[in-house]
Amino acid sequence: MHKILVMNGPNLNLLGTRQPEVYGSETLTMVEERCVAYGKQVGMEVTCMQSNHEGVLLDAIHAAKGVYDAVILNAGAYTHTSIALMDAIYSVELPVVEVHLSNIHARESFRHTSYISKAALGQICGFGSQGYLMALDALRAHLNPATHG
Amino acid sequence: MHKILVMNGPNLNLLGTRQPEVYGSETLTMVEERCVAYGKQVGMEVTCMQSNHEGVLLDAIHAAKGVYDAVILNAGAYTHTSIALMDAIYSVELPVVEVHLSNIHARESFRHTSYISKAALGQICGFGSQGYLMALDALRAHLNPATHG
Amino acid sequence: MHKILVMNGPNLNLLGTRQPEVYGSETLTMVEERCVAYGKQVGMEVTCMQSNHEGVLLDAIHAAKGVYDAVILNAGAYTHTSIALMDAIYSVELPVVEVHLSNIHARESFRHTSYISKAALGQICGFGSQGYLMALDALRAHLNPATHG
Amino acid sequence: MHKILVMNGPNLNLLGTRQPEVYGSETLTMVEERCVAYGKQVGMEVTCMQSNHEGVLLDAIHAAKGVYDAVILNAGAYTHTSIALMDAIYSVELPVVEVHLSNIHARESFRHTSYISKAALGQICGFGSQGYLMALDALRAHLNPATHG
Amino acid sequence: MHKILVMNGPNLNLLGTRQPEVYGSETLTMVEERCVAYGKQVGMEVTCMQSNHEGVLLDAIHAAKGVYDAVILNAGAYTHTSIALMDAIYSVELPVVEVHLSNIHARESFRHTSYISKAALGQICGFGSQGYLMALDALRAHLNPATHG
Amino acid sequence: MHKILVMNGPNLNLLGTRQPEVYGSETLTMVEERCVAYGKQVGMEVTCMQSNHEGVLLDAIHAAKGVYDAVILNAGAYTHTSIALMDAIYSVELPVVEVHLSNIHARESFRHTSYISKAALGQICGFGSQGYLMALDALRAHLNPATHG
Amino acid sequence: MHKILVMNGPNLNLLGTRQPEVYGSETLTMVEERCVAYGKQVGMEVTCMQSNHEGVLLDAIHAAKGVYDAVILNAGAYTHTSIALMDAIYSVELPVVEVHLSNIHARESFRHTSYISKAALGQICGFGSQGYLMALDALRAHLNPATHG
Amino acid sequence: MHKILVMNGPNLNLLGTRQPEVYGSETLTMVEERCVAYGKQVGMEVTCMQSNHEGVLLDAIHAAKGVYDAVILNAGAYTHTSIALMDAIYSVELPVVEVHLSNIHARESFRHTSYISKAALGQICGFGSQGYLMALDALRAHLNPATHG
Amino acid sequence: MHKILVMNGPNLNLLGTRQPEVYGSETLTMVEERCVAYGKQVGMEVTCMQSNHEGVLLDAIHAAKGVYDAVILNAGAYTHTSIALMDAIYSVELPVVEVHLSNIHARESFRHTSYISKAALGQICGFGSQGYLMALDALRAHLNPATHG
Amino acid sequence: MHKILVMNGPNLNLLGTRQPEVYGSETLTMVEERCVAYGKQVGMEVTCMQSNHEGVLLDAIHAAKGVYDAVILNAGAYTHTSIALMDAIYSVELPVVEVHLSNIHARESFRHTSYISKAALGQICGFGSQGYLMALDALRAHLNPATHG
Amino acid sequence: MHKILVMNGPNLNLLGTRQPEVYGSETLTMVEERCVAYGKQVGMEVTCMQSNHEGVLLDAIHAAKGVYDAVILNAGAYTHTSIALMDAIYSVELPVVEVHLSNIHARESFRHTSYISKAALGQICGFGSQGYLMALDALRAHLNPATHG
Amino acid sequence: MHKILVMNGPNLNLLGTRQPEVYGSETLTMVEERCVAYGKQVGMEVTCMQSNHEGVLLDAIHAAKGVYDAVILNAGAYTHTSIALMDAIYSVELPVVEVHLSNIHARESFRHTSYISKAALGQICGFGSQGYLMALDALRAHLNPATHG
Repeated sequence: MHKILVMNGPNLNLLGTRQPEVYGSETLTMVEERCVAYGKQVGMEVTCMQSNHEGVLLDAIHAAKGVYDAVILNAGAYTHTSIALMDAIYSVELPVVEVHLSNIHARESFRHTSYISKAALGQICGFGSQGYLMALDALRAHLNPATHG
Repeated sequence: MHKILVMNGPNLNLLGTRQPEVYGSETLTMVEERCVAYGKQVGMEVTCMQSNHEGVLLDAIHAAKGVYDAVILNAGAYTHTSIALMDAIYSVELPVVEVHLSNIHARESFRHTSYISKAALGQICGFGSQGYLMALDALRAHLNPATHG
Repeated sequence: MHKILVMNGPNLNLLGTRQPEVYGSETLTMVEERCVAYGKQVGMEVTCMQSNHEGVLLDAIHAAKGVYDAVILNAGAYTHTSIALMDAIYSVELPVVEVHLSNIHARESFRHTSYISKAALGQICGFGSQGYLMALDALRAHLNPATHG
Repeated sequence: MHKILVMNGPNLNLLGTRQPEVYGSETLTMVEERCVAYGKQVGMEVTCMQSNHEGVLLDAIHAAKGVYDAVILNAGAYTHTSIALMDAIYSVELPVVEVHLSNIHARESFRHTSYISKAALGQICGFGSQGYLMALDALRAHLNPATHG
Repeated sequence: MHKILVMNGPNLNLLGTRQPEVYGSETLTMVEERCVAYGKQVGMEVTCMQSNHEGVLLDAIHAAKGVYDAVILNAGAYTHTSIALMDAIYSVELPVVEVHLSNIHARESFRHTSYISKAALGQICGFGSQGYLMALDALRAHLNPATHG
Repeated sequence: MHKILVMNGPNLNLLGTRQPEVYGSETLTMVEERCVAYGKQVGMEVTCMQSNHEGVLLDAIHAAKGVYDAVILNAGAYTHTSIALMDAIYSVELPVVEVHLSNIHARESFRHTSYISKAALGQICGFGSQGYLMALDALRAHLNPATHG
Repeated sequence: MHKILVMNGPNLNLLGTRQPEVYGSETLTMVEERCVAYGKQVGMEVTCMQSNHEGVLLDAIHAAKGVYDAVILNAGAYTHTSIALMDAIYSVELPVVEVHLSNIHARESFRHTSYISKAALGQICGFGSQGYLMALDALRAHLNPATHG
Repeated sequence: MHKILVMNGPNLNLLGTRQPEVYGSETLTMVEERCVAYGKQVGMEVTCMQSNHEGVLLDAIHAAKGVYDAVILNAGAYTHTSIALMDAIYSVELPVVEVHLSNIHARESFRHTSYISKAALGQICGFGSQGYLMALDALRAHLNPATHG
Repeated sequence: MHKILVMNGPNLNLLGTRQPEVYGSETLTMVEERCVAYGKQVGMEVTCMQSNHEGVLLDAIHAAKGVYDAVILNAGAYTHTSIALMDAIYSVELPVVEVHLSNIHARESFRHTSYISKAALGQICGFGSQGYLMALDALRAHLNPATHG
Repeated sequence: MHKILVMNGPNLNLLGTRQPEVYGSETLTMVEERCVAYGKQVGMEVTCMQSNHEGVLLDAIHAAKGVYDAVILNAGAYTHTSIALMDAIYSVELPVVEVHLSNIHARESFRHTSYISKAALGQICGFGSQGYLMALDALRAHLNPATHG
Repeated sequence: MHKILVMNGPNLNLLGTRQPEVYGSETLTMVEERCVAYGKQVGMEVTCMQSNHEGVLLDAIHAAKGVYDAVILNAGAYTHTSIALMDAIYSVELPVVEVHLSNIHARESFRHTSYISKAALGQICGFGSQGYLMALDALRAHLNPATHG
Repeated sequence: MHKILVMNGPNLNLLGTRQPEVYGSETLTMVEERCVAYGKQVGMEVTCMQSNHEGVLLDAIHAAKGVYDAVILNAGAYTHTSIALMDAIYSVELPVVEVHLSNIHARESFRHTSYISKAALGQICGFGSQGYLMALDALRAHLNPATHG
């Protein structure tokens, strides 16, 4: 059974309490529980973590090597500024799927650039918390190329 | 049962015969058949079309209004240059999911900009033909918000 | 009696059905009829066409030479991207008046650039469908310089 | 009867004596008289003023509020540099039509940007002094939406 | 005997009737006949086509695969804007020689960029219709590397 | 019989010994001999020179006036930085054909700009040493417009 | 007792009558009176002036030298375009505090640049008319460094 | 009594020991004590914290919600690079006043951009430690709009 | 005897009292008297004016036509921002020599651009007040081409 | 004996296990041991630390003041984004030598900019772990100017 | 008697024979003789040199130190590209007056930048060969500040 | 024994006599002697050359192939402008170490770009003449990878 680490970056801990009329009333805990549940359903063991600290996120990516088969990463605002996170992904050579709740390409221009993208397998954005489940599907297909289809 | 139009733009008709060592041996017909089959499986009626003509794609988006519930659009190279396609999406007010086979954000800089994104629900890129099925899942969740979860 | 070709580009066929609270309930057919009627009133024979295909618009500009005395062109989104349309206007050497329904200079920055402008007599934008009638007036003055005043 | 203020900015006082082979032998006074006469013909009371002073133009826009129903503004070179004129238009909330004798979009690149446009109803350029009469027509339609058509 | 497809893009159909004092009185038909005749002379079978439609040009490049040994492409104004044409050349993996009648690098700055160049064998510009014959020579040397010299 | 000067700029003296797997084993001497031989064959007297010194190239262009009928110039890396070479070509008013062995438009972005192009008749790039012979053909057509065709 | 000149630039005379739902119903006169009153309260003699004329503002800065101990300047739209005002401040060598009613850094990008800032002591923006009183406090501390604290 | 959190970012802990000839001999502790004392004097309860860790600052902003009525933030160098801090301010929806000791707009160009500004109430810069007291005044007026004046 | 108008723009009235250690103790009056005196000596009638008002400078250029044979213009900070002054020079078709006291090309980058230059005969900068006398020499040579040398 | 702090930033802890075919099999521990050993050999006491946390690196630079005589800093990806690290170096006024394993100027363009450089003594890049020993030599010469040579 | 070196750069040797309808029939020798003669007249010993070689110009500037009191430099096209010439001027610390025959600020944009300007006393452009004599006057005033006036 | 060529470019011959308070009183000859002496000490034969001529530097790099094992290059101002030098390094395929006396990344922005870097092994800057000895060390390690450590 593949092991997947779901990482959330800065400000995502506020999900649910932050502008609920925009982001909905689903908290990060609820999103993480959906990920774990969906993982079980499709045969993947999902672990979740969140931090507002770039250094903690870097440490976690480093630690993921050899423990997890793949990472789902919503780096929040660090997406647009952190060359260090990009380098970390290159270094551990794990497949990473980049997820964003909102469609970052339809927002302010400084959100259109993603350093994460350069090192990631692919990007999913604009589908809210559903994007995490789609990322799990993408990784399932990626990690099981033979049986897929 | 929701009706979905899967549209593919310029050069995507060459899929399978084009650099198969890169893009795989799956042809566009095979991808479209997978979409239709997966649609059936999850209760969506999927129709597919492809054109190398920007005008034909525009006409098709216009015609989709009132016929389809949503569009999955891989506009190929027009993604980066066609303001007209963006305007068409705004005009018909259908939910559109943008799909790309490759991770466009990890390629040449002129592929990082997408006019489609500004009018689309969200973007999925980098997962090959699997991206179309993920788009169907995204639309399923989007079109059935009540029963989703 | 001068013969005028009124050309409309991509997405303008949706006029009236597209965001009527913004663009009003007047359809393209109604606008074209107003142009023909106003033409008759001021002694000009007006013909109208619309296409979403850049190639069709190019063919039409080519065909206009020797048939029409002038062209009124609302190239829609192609305004901002089509060097080919600019070259076509230069080639046929017909007077062209550029029209836009909205004030393109007050919208997104990618709408501030017009290739059409470089080859056109002048530009009218921001006055809705009234702009076409103003263009007819401008052409009347341009084509009848002696009697004008 | 609607009252319209026609404002001309820097260097426009030289019209007629300035490069007559380019701009024609019509002086600013003649243009203004045509505006007044045309206004009478179509039922609008037209008043004209010109200044080379940005501050005088600002004062005049301020004073126009409550006195005139609309403004026709050819701000000359200030078009491209005066954020203050744009702010003045926003402040008085009068409909303003921007006019230019030449097609500014076909000239040097620093003439392609207009601060006036961001606050104006629309823009007319490239039609010489005829543009002022077209602006009067545009305002007539704008101020009489009900009876227009 | 190698088979060569000579493709001309938007507005090139007007050759000869368009500003003859600039481009000469030679029509596109005459240029194409010279290409065919010169091809015969040097042992190459030359076929010609022209279209103002980007989509038709894309279809023609696709269809050229397996039929022609190489393509000579004057994409006209699409040279500077069509990522789709570049992608098409990459996809069919045919040698393409880019030709322009005028020296595009000595004209407006937006003509200095060529997407075609990125996928083409090489570029010839500034030599009028002679450039097509030079392209045939270039392809003769390219397709017969052993006997060339 | 027309006299042609073939000029090669910096680093081109290394041809043949420099990355032979890329540039082939043909030395500059061999290329120059091919030029002279081909010139004889088509009735042109070809002289060759090479220098790594921008000043020597400038002096040579100056000296070419009144001695040669035209110049074929591969300015190497000076192509992208030497306004002085451009000015020299303007000054001597000789027809100059710009040649590059590689397709400079498909390489690093700083190689896409050519000051030489602004003053040259035309540009040939991407065809290796064959480009020099094509340049001789181009000049033959240019210098004999009457008998050409 | 220190003497302070409060200068307001273009369009600020409209305060109170201009978009009162945004800027409040406080007029410029009321703001100036608050400044004078607060000045009295904290031992500073405050004089106020306003002009829409850049030249008048320049003259006033020049005249302030030797008369006032410091200037509070809200240059309105001239903030972003007037190098002359910056030079004037450098020339008179008076301490100048820059004030803006709105947070200019959160508005359109052309409002993010301030020439005034380069010559000013500091900037206060976003606090409405309260900013002028804060500027008086800042100048009090600046002009009385010994007794402050 | 309103509760205010004064936050200082990277390197501000060195105040007083860092280039005292420039920044003065006042330490951060002294500045914080002045803030607390001034707060008491004007009826606000001031709490201070400082960190060089972006993540700690983010956590602190999150924790401030529901505890403090407003925040005074000098984010130091993170001002110019941290989209995450901007997002945090948007998320907690607390009024934030941005303070800088020096006039950042008169320094290196990379200090002219502030992500904090986009989410803050307003900005105060260039007045040294006095700026914090001014920020308290600004918040007092902001939090007590009725009694202010 | 040729009549020359020496015009000085914003802040130049402060010459002598403004940073005398930099600009010297020579006042504008002294500079103007040197111009008049030197004019007499070389047979030119020199008149001087100065204004901080862009509009006054525009009016003065307009009025110079038919009265003066040439203008010497130090437009101060308006040099870099006033398209209107450039247009005025084009309009009156008088020879204008641009003068700056300091070497503007060695200062801040926003001082490197001059709109005046585009319409002026030439530019003299960096020579202090001596530049005005050099401008008189330049005009003497320009206005007397036959007797010069 | 001088005391030197060798600081390594984000992702450098992975040295040796990260793409060993590129970076070699030397781990960070081995590199640090070489630094300490070489320090001993040349009479310098070397201490090493590494962190992925920008805040920890900032704290460490602050703490270095008064303890170490100089710092060798490989800030990894923070080199290109951290204004805070630059400010920290300015604040502690210790000599800092910037080291990079790879030649950052020959990589992606976003790695060409270094904020560290602006505050550092000098930069060494492209020599792998040898660069740290070279930095020790540079500091030895810098700290012993009298005896060096 | 002051000794002045007049240096001319690339292509200036062609003066008189190069586009005489534009640059006049005066050769460089004639210009140099005028400089020498004028120098004698005003008590300066003028020596002239010209080279197309950047290296020769650098050597000459180096050699000028201790021999000449000042340099008049028309660096031709090297003006816009040669950082080395700027550095040479900084190194020898001689006063240098920059001269251009044409008004470089009214020509192509790549001629608006001058590296020479950053190190020169001042710039004179647009006055043809008269500019050299004006430069001599400027140097006379600069080298004799006491007796000047 | 490895043979190393130390090359110095434009203006470096002035070392010692040029701004000695900045660059020290060490002349280029002294620096070269230190290089030779240090080379002997560590078993490398060092040869030195300097030229202000880009062409001479190019010739020298070409001639170094087969004679020297590596090159130490301080290209001075040509660092930032010479694509030709970069191409020469690529052509001869010798290891090149780039040296600069000053920290070029802390100076004017046009000194931040290095064409040399793209082809060099690595860069050393900011350590004065010590940098050449560090470069010798770097080459020693590079040329003796086996025995190093």
